Amino acid sequence: MNLDGLLQTTLDRSIKGLPPAAAPMRLGEVGQRGWNLLKGDLPLPVAVIKRAALDHNSRWMRRFLELTDAKIAPHGKTTMAPQLFAKQLADGAWGITVATVGQMLVARAFGVDRIVLANQLVGRQEIATVAEELRRDPKFDFYCLVDSLDGVRRLVEIAATAGIGRPLQVLLEGGFAGGRTGCRTSEDALAVARAVKAASPHVALRGVEGFEGLLTSGPPAEQDAKVAAFLDYLVEIARRCAAEQLFAAGPIILTAGGSAFFDLAATRLHNAAPQGVDVVIRSGCYLTHDSKSYRDMVARLTERMPVARSLGEGLKPALEVWAYVQSRPEPGRAIATMGKRDVGFDVTLPILEQWYRPGTHAAPQRADGLGTVVGLNDQHAHIEVPKDAPFGVGDLLSFGVSHPCTTFDRWQLIYEIDESHNVIGAIRTFF
Amino acid sequence: MNLDGLLQTTLDRSIKGLPPAAAPMRLGEVGQRGWNLLKGDLPLPVAVIKRAALDHNSRWMRRFLELTDAKIAPHGKTTMAPQLFAKQLADGAWGITVATVGQMLVARAFGVDRIVLANQLVGRQEIATVAEELRRDPKFDFYCLVDSLDGVRRLVEIAATAGIGRPLQVLLEGGFAGGRTGCRTSEDALAVARAVKAASPHVALRGVEGFEGLLTSGPPAEQDAKVAAFLDYLVEIARRCAAEQLFAAGPIILTAGGSAFFDLAATRLHNAAPQGVDVVIRSGCYLTHDSKSYRDMVARLTERMPVARSLGEGLKPALEVWAYVQSRPEPGRAIATMGKRDVGFDVTLPILEQWYRPGTHAAPQRADGLGTVVGLNDQHAHIEVPKDAPFGVGDLLSFGVSHPCTTFDRWQLIYEIDESHNVIGAIRTFF
Repeated sequence: MNLDGLLQTTLDRSIKGLPPAAAPMRLGEVGQRGWNLLKGDLPLPVAVIKRAALDHNSRWMRRFLELTDAKIAPHGKTTMAPQLFAKQLADGAWGITVATVGQMLVARAFGVDRIVLANQLVGRQEIATVAEELRRDPKFDFYCLVDSLDGVRRLVEIAATAGIGRPLQVLLEGGFAGGRTGCRTSEDALAVARAVKAASPHVALRGVEGFEGLLTSGPPAEQDAKVAAFLDYLVEIARRCAAEQLFAAGPIILTAGGSAFFDLAATRLHNAAPQGVDVVIRSGCYLTHDSKSYRDMVARLTERMPVARSLGEGLKPALEVWAYVQSRPEPGRAIATMGKRDVGFDVTLPILEQWYRPGTHAAPQRADGLGTVVGLNDQHAHIEVPKDAPFGVGDLLSFGVSHPCTTFDRWQLIYEIDESHNVIGAIRTFF
Repeated sequence: MNLDGLLQTTLDRSIKGLPPAAAPMRLGEVGQRGWNLLKGDLPLPVAVIKRAALDHNSRWMRRFLELTDAKIAPHGKTTMAPQLFAKQLADGAWGITVATVGQMLVARAFGVDRIVLANQLVGRQEIATVAEELRRDPKFDFYCLVDSLDGVRRLVEIAATAGIGRPLQVLLEGGFAGGRTGCRTSEDALAVARAVKAASPHVALRGVEGFEGLLTSGPPAEQDAKVAAFLDYLVEIARRCAAEQLFAAGPIILTAGGSAFFDLAATRLHNAAPQGVDVVIRSGCYLTHDSKSYRDMVARLTERMPVARSLGEGLKPALEVWAYVQSRPEPGRAIATMGKRDVGFDVTLPILEQWYRPGTHAAPQRADGLGTVVGLNDQHAHIEVPKDAPFGVGDLLSFGVSHPCTTFDRWQLIYEIDESHNVIGAIRTFF
């Protein structure tokens, strides 16, 4: 399937957020119905993307990459939206990152030719699926991670007999104590790299990878220092692999940089790494950004990297969930029609941002100080409000999110809206 | 669409958990492929339901309802699986409960004729959708909640002109201070009930509803006492409504009872309520139960209700998620290929239950004491293990869940397995 095919697919009444009277309808028609969020044309809750903010973020990242001479393989797990993958590739993304073979297949179905599986590939069925995809399409450029001898052995067992016609490309993962995957010492890393080299031509070491995004304990300066030290560790691994000639032919890839510290990855890897190395960051969240967790993290970017001020206004939150006030059961409490099924809550609870009363307000009002989400059930939000908060039953509220990944995966359909809240398109996700 | 139609639908490679080489295939064929979870036939992670446990729970609930003379309208939001709705209705369920109009439409698409929307219905589009469905199908028996005069007014505005041909049936919601929706005092409740009566025949008061499931603070005995007092409050509201003749014709419905305290609802409402009242519990989780949160809650059931021991062995956990060990990066740590995208984490983190090494183990081994999930990222589980834990890269681990609702909604496809881990069917969800 290609994007045109996706736009032709039919949405039926089982798709959450679609006006039932309109279904079945084609995805590509959603933006042409003249719907407006504030006019009650959509059932709530709904998730929306503000296209102006998305476009702004897209342009900002292009300029950031020009400034830093880094490449990006945005993490597709964030959105799992082929329409957004296509936008990112059109913006010049080097490839798309995924976390699972299932996610790889979605990206492949929509013609993504370069994929970084930023994960160990260990299941025999999963390895065989990748091998088959490589065999089927000689131009498919695929990378996965290794961090153990066992892991290399499992890849080689299948790669050696799958008839891929070229090596299975791997990136050596460096990790840190108490962290996630990845070799904790350069000695361990080198042992894995040597095993890869010994198994050539079935596998090929193409670079070094790490994920610094979990180094978030302690005050900001301490976090930055830990991230910098970790990035230096990845460079050290790469230098040692290069010194032992463990890399296969082709440019060496050095990749790190999630959505919180991608500036550090882009600049520090670039400055530290030997010439001829491709630095690839992998932020998945820059495109929609968010209203709290990444907003706070990325707010520090220009402190670490003052030159980034030249890029103009920073990333803007593009993702919102809208719901109704369904009850004002106590003076200090409002309950809204949005719950764990509709919005992420893993980093912080959603942030009440706007209030709109149909028939009264010409436009949504800022809701600063008017309420705080203090709890979510599966299908309800508990909002603590001042006793005189003006919210009434049937009013619309909008919420910003923390950590876009866990809101995207609540929706198969996310509307794109313009600045007047007209629905101008729809994004389909594949979780 | 009916269930036969659902079984004929095609699953493509974008469906998480489906072996890509097998796709596209029909849902109804999944159980006939001879797949076995332990033989590596499925890509991991996958979610599975143990059919024997599901059937056991189904029989247990039938006996429980016979014992208590209560009815059940299981909350469909838990599974959003029409195949499981059909099983519950075949078991004698009085109806299906839903939380949103979107969920109602899914149930309606599969022929569910009696639906309790256990929520306020406030959006004009949502009210119109319900009215249209009532107009279209004279045998559709629908109930929703009211807890405010504004809420009644919004329903009446549309019900009065929608040509439904019968009243829109409502249940008056009672709530508790600090809780979710629902009238906090019987005076407030009566005012709402009178407004419903005044708006007849467009709306009709058919009963009283409450949700006690959030009364979980304090030690168990205190919780039980709070729940009992709340149930008594619902009965008081019902008695006062009856005394003022605010109920419409037909049996009065008294409904409460989520998955933690349904025994209290079934017995206390039944004993306290006047004759001729239908007591309806709404547990959504009894069918799969879980390995921690509801396991612990329901373990108290036989203490509160010793006669329930006569029902034989209690509810069994039926839902598991399986993943690979992808890394043993440190002696005390294993990382598995399962994350927030795959399993719920809102009540407790998933519980490591079994370990299986292909080629070594004849059957999964109990993993008691071998590891504890201490964190989840979007696509990874961090497991703290004893330094000598035997887990190796490529081993399979199974995890039990806390709160089935937030694991069901991570999957569009959940396998049914027998006791030898053969895949004997598949359940499709609609979130």
